[in-house]
Amino acid sequence: MKKTIITISRETGSGGHSIGKMLADRLGYAFYDKEFVAEVARETGIDAETILQNGEYMAEGAFFERAIGIAPVTRSGKIPYEEIKRVQDGLIRRIAEKGNCVIVGRGADYILRNDPRALHVFIHASMDYRVRRVQEKDGLTGQEARIRKELEVKDRSRGTYYQYYTDRKWGKVANYHLVLDAGLFGQEQCCDMICGALAYLNGREA
Amino acid sequence: MKKTIITISRETGSGGHSIGKMLADRLGYAFYDKEFVAEVARETGIDAETILQNGEYMAEGAFFERAIGIAPVTRSGKIPYEEIKRVQDGLIRRIAEKGNCVIVGRGADYILRNDPRALHVFIHASMDYRVRRVQEKDGLTGQEARIRKELEVKDRSRGTYYQYYTDRKWGKVANYHLVLDAGLFGQEQCCDMICGALAYLNGREA
Repeated sequence: MKKTIITISRETGSGGHSIGKMLADRLGYAFYDKEFVAEVARETGIDAETILQNGEYMAEGAFFERAIGIAPVTRSGKIPYEEIKRVQDGLIRRIAEKGNCVIVGRGADYILRNDPRALHVFIHASMDYRVRRVQEKDGLTGQEARIRKELEVKDRSRGTYYQYYTDRKWGKVANYHLVLDAGLFGQEQCCDMICGALAYLNGREA
Repeated sequence: MKKTIITISRETGSGGHSIGKMLADRLGYAFYDKEFVAEVARETGIDAETILQNGEYMAEGAFFERAIGIAPVTRSGKIPYEEIKRVQDGLIRRIAEKGNCVIVGRGADYILRNDPRALHVFIHASMDYRVRRVQEKDGLTGQEARIRKELEVKDRSRGTYYQYYTDRKWGKVANYHLVLDAGLFGQEQCCDMICGALAYLNGREA
């Protein structure tokens, strides 16, 4: 069966978003990353910021609170994890139904783990590369220690969220068909390699 | 710097050995997998079977015995892990020194983790694919449950060995530049993709 869905999981700051966008543009596929937020906000009535903060992140504290049956709260009230998750998952399934799409993050690799049309990709990079990318993007010089810490916290809370909902470890090789170090290859080449893999698989399956 | 060393880590039965061999032949590189065993036997005087069993495998029990300072023993006596490891690591470093080589397993990805000439690859595949490969290789029909169990045990003891000596988890995406699902892509295509990655990197770096 042809691969017409690409899920991209990624370490924070590794460039998975940009590679996904580049890939979608090149293939003429729909692209979903932050696009989820507005749509989930519309369907649930929950504010976009809450969805952005909790649609693929979970603090380690929240993991334990939930494990013992306590709903985690923030200063602004309970975090509606379950509702965000339910609507977001439904959205991912509807998007996948149509095919021809690139989906970044949101545990889509797990939701679509048994979909034969899905190619599951993971993008990572060294911490140095990721810190430099954030500096360039935000026009910063220095502040390496702060950026590094933020990246680590974000990765950890992606991992916690993923493990909470999937019972799988985030970032295990066996969960992905193709894993690329964007720091070594660069973003263009990662895009080329994913396109090459697709062309091969779809040519062979056609 | 040009990539002239390829380390291949692999799930048991995924075809990492065959892909490595194919790659070495295509590139005209030296190939090391079971080749280590005879060389380590020669240098240490330890019998080949003991080296084969303990040069990249460690039972979970042995991990705990070692962690609390007890040398694990088998019916034939103490397992000389440290001596095998020391000689094997030295051999890996000498091989790497010369470059133009493909090294399968033995934690070479860790030993050479800071060598800028090394490309670190991980090959995995679904359990179904791996069971089928073992059946074909050994000319078996049926016995899926037994084969599956053996593969799981072997993977687990590779993971235990790796973690004991590296303090890293085996099979984490961040430790590899390129990870391929050989069950999806097939062995020829995995070889093609690794060659493509090398050609790109070495062309760019040349």
